[in-house]
Amino acid sequence: MLYHVRMDVHLPPDLAPAERGDIIAREKEYSQKLQREGRWPHLWRIAGEYANFSILDVADHDELHALLSGLPLFPYMNIEVTPLAMHPSKIAD
Amino acid sequence: MLYHVRMDVHLPPDLAPAERGDIIAREKEYSQKLQREGRWPHLWRIAGEYANFSILDVADHDELHALLSGLPLFPYMNIEVTPLAMHPSKIAD
Amino acid sequence: MLYHVRMDVHLPPDLAPAERGDIIAREKEYSQKLQREGRWPHLWRIAGEYANFSILDVADHDELHALLSGLPLFPYMNIEVTPLAMHPSKIAD
Amino acid sequence: MLYHVRMDVHLPPDLAPAERGDIIAREKEYSQKLQREGRWPHLWRIAGEYANFSILDVADHDELHALLSGLPLFPYMNIEVTPLAMHPSKIAD
Amino acid sequence: MLYHVRMDVHLPPDLAPAERGDIIAREKEYSQKLQREGRWPHLWRIAGEYANFSILDVADHDELHALLSGLPLFPYMNIEVTPLAMHPSKIAD
Amino acid sequence: MLYHVRMDVHLPPDLAPAERGDIIAREKEYSQKLQREGRWPHLWRIAGEYANFSILDVADHDELHALLSGLPLFPYMNIEVTPLAMHPSKIAD
Amino acid sequence: MLYHVRMDVHLPPDLAPAERGDIIAREKEYSQKLQREGRWPHLWRIAGEYANFSILDVADHDELHALLSGLPLFPYMNIEVTPLAMHPSKIAD
Amino acid sequence: MLYHVRMDVHLPPDLAPAERGDIIAREKEYSQKLQREGRWPHLWRIAGEYANFSILDVADHDELHALLSGLPLFPYMNIEVTPLAMHPSKIAD
Amino acid sequence: MLYHVRMDVHLPPDLAPAERGDIIAREKEYSQKLQREGRWPHLWRIAGEYANFSILDVADHDELHALLSGLPLFPYMNIEVTPLAMHPSKIAD
Amino acid sequence: MLYHVRMDVHLPPDLAPAERGDIIAREKEYSQKLQREGRWPHLWRIAGEYANFSILDVADHDELHALLSGLPLFPYMNIEVTPLAMHPSKIAD
Repeated sequence: MLYHVRMDVHLPPDLAPAERGDIIAREKEYSQKLQREGRWPHLWRIAGEYANFSILDVADHDELHALLSGLPLFPYMNIEVTPLAMHPSKIAD
Repeated sequence: MLYHVRMDVHLPPDLAPAERGDIIAREKEYSQKLQREGRWPHLWRIAGEYANFSILDVADHDELHALLSGLPLFPYMNIEVTPLAMHPSKIAD
Repeated sequence: MLYHVRMDVHLPPDLAPAERGDIIAREKEYSQKLQREGRWPHLWRIAGEYANFSILDVADHDELHALLSGLPLFPYMNIEVTPLAMHPSKIAD
Repeated sequence: MLYHVRMDVHLPPDLAPAERGDIIAREKEYSQKLQREGRWPHLWRIAGEYANFSILDVADHDELHALLSGLPLFPYMNIEVTPLAMHPSKIAD
Repeated sequence: MLYHVRMDVHLPPDLAPAERGDIIAREKEYSQKLQREGRWPHLWRIAGEYANFSILDVADHDELHALLSGLPLFPYMNIEVTPLAMHPSKIAD
Repeated sequence: MLYHVRMDVHLPPDLAPAERGDIIAREKEYSQKLQREGRWPHLWRIAGEYANFSILDVADHDELHALLSGLPLFPYMNIEVTPLAMHPSKIAD
Repeated sequence: MLYHVRMDVHLPPDLAPAERGDIIAREKEYSQKLQREGRWPHLWRIAGEYANFSILDVADHDELHALLSGLPLFPYMNIEVTPLAMHPSKIAD
Repeated sequence: MLYHVRMDVHLPPDLAPAERGDIIAREKEYSQKLQREGRWPHLWRIAGEYANFSILDVADHDELHALLSGLPLFPYMNIEVTPLAMHPSKIAD
Repeated sequence: MLYHVRMDVHLPPDLAPAERGDIIAREKEYSQKLQREGRWPHLWRIAGEYANFSILDVADHDELHALLSGLPLFPYMNIEVTPLAMHPSKIAD
Repeated sequence: MLYHVRMDVHLPPDLAPAERGDIIAREKEYSQKLQREGRWPHLWRIAGEYANFSILDVADHDELHALLSGLPLFPYMNIEVTPLAMHPSKIAD
């Protein structure tokens, strides 16, 4: 099932560079593992902001929450989830 | 270039059914033509709302505006456009 | 799967009483059928407002959207959907 | 009497892990005691957020306030309370 | 039990004067009956607006909703309800 | 003259307990003195929040501001003032 | 006593020109009478909007409400009132 | 002096096509006359919306208001004005 | 030219008292100098808030920005500027 | 392609003056380099605020994001991007 997710990151500017680098590296690794598994099929940067729009493809709400709350950047994010249904005008892919 | 677009439709409940049906039929035809051309690669219904999230793929802002303002439902829509950049964690498709 | 839904109804005050009565009667029938099927397990009136909080239990986002967009009052409603996950502190029922 | 409550938790990311763990453990114990007493009949995680929707069942506003302000996480929460009335379309449970 | 209520009235300027006068007269009668019964102990006009702050004193949420949804101006109002608890600094009246 | 006031308190969770206790004790004393003088006739806790609705009865705007800015919790509060006029439907007390 | 007032006018574009002209002429007359009496000492147009900032000088909240609700444009306005106190840095006029 | 202006147009969808066409033609003529005079140096369409960002260059606030309130679309617009000052990092043109 | 300005001050409660006193003293001196020069003709305290409404009278936007950004409290303020035009109903002073 | 950008700067008041000076100097240098390259054709200070409106002229969304996220003040800014299309009433420059 598809979910539309907006994530806004608010890292404090005075975070120690090493800690910052570590979190971001772990976030990248975590995200790419999910992409390779097909559970994070789309990921776009919102131009000009430290934020993204994502499409996640998971079995249910519990899997979605586990996935999102496991993000290394989760404690620094605002997240907004929107469930997506099939659009009646959509042509077959 | 990719744009994220949210469209919210506000058709007046007392619109004549024939006019309503005509607008919606033309909207569907218009949307599907753009999908077949590859300019509207994603289209999802926001569950529970008369609204959608779309990804449009066009050459520039002028083509985007021409495309959106040509929607048969345009006079009845609120539209919000967000330009999308490549995300540094995105793996190759 | 559970979804939390807030519905706010905006019926125009000058709607013809017969039409108003008909819509509300059909809404009630529609809602009670879904309740009996177990797909609308909770329904509460928000005190002082023409609005409700509901919990819906359906298979997926598409079934949710079909259910909500089929409401006789749908053209007069603002609807806000929130997917619900299991809470780690929840005791077994 | 039933109250709908939304709780959003904002724990500072730099809270000491021991203190954090202690608060969360006490919150869980507090919540489960109230659930066993029947005063917190529903508790759902909002998918993707450190937040919940709850239904509380207490005698009056004073008991509600005592219950909520006693939450170990209360100093870190935004709380929004909505009183719930019986819905005229609700079928008997 | 006490509830704080804000009511904002939005009567269409082109409402027929007779109908307008009738609704307002019935609203006044309805409100004064409740005041005499002790169920509407405070009623203040918000200076400069067609709006009021009220304190209602009723047995429970259902009685509150019945009272508010019975207001002749209800179809023209936005209503916001806040349950009130005893304040720990309040001295005895 | 009557003023409706909403006060929201935002005490930092890491305030030293002694300082916190001292501010709250002085706030209570200050509030109760004003209540005994008849200048703070109503004070209600907003259920579930560290906030109150108050009715203040003072001679003019300057006295109101002096009273509110003298609150020991003033540096930690958001305050919203609404002047109250007589409502035409109000019955004599 | 001084009150700061923002007034936003929303006249429907399809109002009959004669009616529109009549309301605006009466509004001007009403406003200028109050200005000559010293009760409306300041009146500024918000550049680019059909709106104004005003300073009113009246005895109390009831006189303020009578004055504002008597405006010929009152049914078409949003009005926001803010009570003004003496500023400690203000020099004598 | 420079002013940044955002204009959002809300033409009712059921406006008679002839009237609509007439207003838009007069708006275009009015705008282009001001552009040729150098008083409206920049005009951009906000992509996907019936709205624009403009830079106006006029002598003072009164001239700005006269210019904007004279727009044929003024009764159908929301307008937001921001005065612009010289930026300390701006290089000479 | 006249500008309407709202200033909201957010001094951190834990600012050292000496530093706090120094900033406020310099702010007062700065403000009173501008008042004596006729550039800050009106200054009112918003009752109950650490905020003011001001009318400033300066030659242009650049002078306004220089004046406001020079306020000793500027780093702690939210400032909102509105340019004021002559109102057509204003009588001569 | 043109983008309209609003940037709001939130530098903490207690930032060390040397660090503050360094960031602002690097920001100025960065901005002026882009202006000289023609990629930042307009830059205006919003009067009374630590904020600007900018027009950026770059090849695509990716170049825009690289440019903005490279700003020395980026970690302290809120940024809002709006893509600009050609306006049908615009006369040739």
